[in-house]
Amino acid sequence: MSIVVVGSVAFDSIETPFGKADRTIGGAATYFSVAASFFSSVQLVGVVGSDFGSEEMRIFEGRPIDLTGLTRLEQGRTFYWSGAYGYDLNVANTLDTQLNVFAQFKPTLPESYRNASVVFLANIDPELQLEVLAQVDHPRIVALDTMNYWISSKRDALAEVMKKSDLILVNEGELRQFTGEANLVRGARRILDLGSKIVVVKRGEYGVLMISGEKIFAAPAFPLENVFDPTGAGDSFAGGFLGYLASCRDLDDRELRRATVYGSVVASFVVEAFGLGRILEISRDEIDSRFEEFKALTHFDSMRS
Amino acid sequence: MSIVVVGSVAFDSIETPFGKADRTIGGAATYFSVAASFFSSVQLVGVVGSDFGSEEMRIFEGRPIDLTGLTRLEQGRTFYWSGAYGYDLNVANTLDTQLNVFAQFKPTLPESYRNASVVFLANIDPELQLEVLAQVDHPRIVALDTMNYWISSKRDALAEVMKKSDLILVNEGELRQFTGEANLVRGARRILDLGSKIVVVKRGEYGVLMISGEKIFAAPAFPLENVFDPTGAGDSFAGGFLGYLASCRDLDDRELRRATVYGSVVASFVVEAFGLGRILEISRDEIDSRFEEFKALTHFDSMRS
Repeated sequence: MSIVVVGSVAFDSIETPFGKADRTIGGAATYFSVAASFFSSVQLVGVVGSDFGSEEMRIFEGRPIDLTGLTRLEQGRTFYWSGAYGYDLNVANTLDTQLNVFAQFKPTLPESYRNASVVFLANIDPELQLEVLAQVDHPRIVALDTMNYWISSKRDALAEVMKKSDLILVNEGELRQFTGEANLVRGARRILDLGSKIVVVKRGEYGVLMISGEKIFAAPAFPLENVFDPTGAGDSFAGGFLGYLASCRDLDDRELRRATVYGSVVASFVVEAFGLGRILEISRDEIDSRFEEFKALTHFDSMRS
Repeated sequence: MSIVVVGSVAFDSIETPFGKADRTIGGAATYFSVAASFFSSVQLVGVVGSDFGSEEMRIFEGRPIDLTGLTRLEQGRTFYWSGAYGYDLNVANTLDTQLNVFAQFKPTLPESYRNASVVFLANIDPELQLEVLAQVDHPRIVALDTMNYWISSKRDALAEVMKKSDLILVNEGELRQFTGEANLVRGARRILDLGSKIVVVKRGEYGVLMISGEKIFAAPAFPLENVFDPTGAGDSFAGGFLGYLASCRDLDDRELRRATVYGSVVASFVVEAFGLGRILEISRDEIDSRFEEFKALTHFDSMRS
């Protein structure tokens, strides 16, 4: 099963209380692809500029990531983001955003991508997300990410994408902004009312809530002694979650819970170093080992067991 | 097995975005006692004024709560706290504190309390907490709660109590304030280095982390569609946790995890209404039923199962 992801490939300059990184490779589609590639093959759609050369492309090497849909525009520069975090690593303060080649991004899916079983619409203009959906044939799962900017500027288009999506990933602030509902469970149900099957509420260092129908699954973030850089955690969560799901025969509650844990595990590695530093060096075995540690972290014996 | 609790019995005036309550019965020792009484017998040490009459005393009726140590001072008024919460129910803004009879509180344990197996030192002056410990004979568990005020004003005395405690309950802000450590896991280990066996880090609507030695157990808060008033959630958590533990033969990791879940469950009922409104109407069966729901909320099948 293959996953199509449409989103940014970027250079990030990041500062946290624990250090900084200058022009490290980032972008939602990048983090997602690397994370998902531990579980399934990925087909990436994005755009880079002339400053994204063969050296940068090496991060994708040796992984099942199809780059047919990654356009390189020689006359432009790659999307650039600069941000800083304080001790509250849940909040990024954007210092600079240079869209560069991303400003003209019009996602066109190669013919070979159109029958993907899973589509991840990373955080881009919801009108472009709708254009992507018009180019795929009946995927099994459509998953959507977004941000506060689109909620306020393109709410109607975003609601339209939500109606066509099976899974919606939002953070707490976005959920409250979109629904006007302070309570997360009620807010999530409002989003489900639009037509999707699953809402994952991302709570940063506190973990996630996955809400599907009447069922709720809560996964904490893996407690780490060293968190260096939260950049990419949300997209890596999505990559681990959808990568695992794409490899499953059934999409039942049992697999959705495992997918949530795999997403949390992959994200927990990402934050252990700046940028892609940690995720590029781990193996599937290390992921599976931390998956088992997650059980020790959260399970208890009920009184009936 | 009996539990001694030393702390405040109070009147609270509370305002949240969902309503308000005027002079409702509150206080750390009150919430703790009612919560713990579902599991074990409780011996309360506290002080009230003449305004705390037989009508108010009825909240303790029909529960295994020994009030021998509750002093009633006819010439004074009961401790009064007034606070307000915004939509972020994790943060209480204190509007007024009137210590009243609590200003002269010198806890004296009745003879019948001195061989209690569990002692809960609710949030009071750490020098008084030390005086309480001098009055008990080798309890099996000493548990400690505190607040930012004592961390800044009586740090040495507080560190002294920590050394003599087995279990320390702190919220995230208090942990960071006391240890100067942003990372919660590292902060908790610093506290364990002082000599206690277990640290429970309270994270409000995000749940708790229980850290003992190298082991970490994460419990989310039970996701509720209606949260009215977080007042008393921390003390009710402590009551459920220690109440359950006091009823256990073994104090191993298995029981500590169950205790954490029972604490979370009792606290989840408390926040569903103002003051003691909800906890006074629930039964042990309802607690046990939600305990089982907690399993559905957090458990997943590992790949090996």
